[in-house]
Amino acid sequence: MAKVIVIYKKPTDEENFKNYYENEHIKLVQQVPYIQKADLDYVTAAMNTEESYYLAATIEFESKQRIGEALQSPEWAKVTEDAENMMKFLPEAPLVLITE
Amino acid sequence: MAKVIVIYKKPTDEENFKNYYENEHIKLVQQVPYIQKADLDYVTAAMNTEESYYLAATIEFESKQRIGEALQSPEWAKVTEDAENMMKFLPEAPLVLITE
Repeated sequence: MAKVIVIYKKPTDEENFKNYYENEHIKLVQQVPYIQKADLDYVTAAMNTEESYYLAATIEFESKQRIGEALQSPEWAKVTEDAENMMKFLPEAPLVLITE
Repeated sequence: MAKVIVIYKKPTDEENFKNYYENEHIKLVQQVPYIQKADLDYVTAAMNTEESYYLAATIEFESKQRIGEALQSPEWAKVTEDAENMMKFLPEAPLVLITE
């Protein structure tokens, strides 16, 4: 199993970010091929940091190879393009970790 | 569903960290009550950061309340105590996110 973990810090405009993410961005993510499972988890507490973390999105794939194929898909290109729309509501681009 | 997500940066002593984590620390985590699922995922790539991330541990619980109960358990106290042993191999304490 392999995952893409995306961690967002607290938005500068929380209401608009949440609304855009949950109603627009997530639809594009759902179109990406080879996704086995996707979780959206809001951060309620954090330790060992002074940063304000807000949201963790975890997307599971069968393998690292499948992640590679997914990241090269036209559907993922739309997700990346849409990420720019969300930057209006964010202090910085989210941390993206590819794991296996 | 609620999660504890623990993110480690690249150890100063990778071999000893990996060995200690996988052979010692993980056994203590497995004793913690109310865990529904636990994943250990090594970071193979990261975006939007200059830091070296290494490992993401995701522990799933039924609810935020169950996490609260787990974190107050004697078994979790042993996990926390053991975390000090791992600090010998780490540049800093791991980021811990509680989510729901």
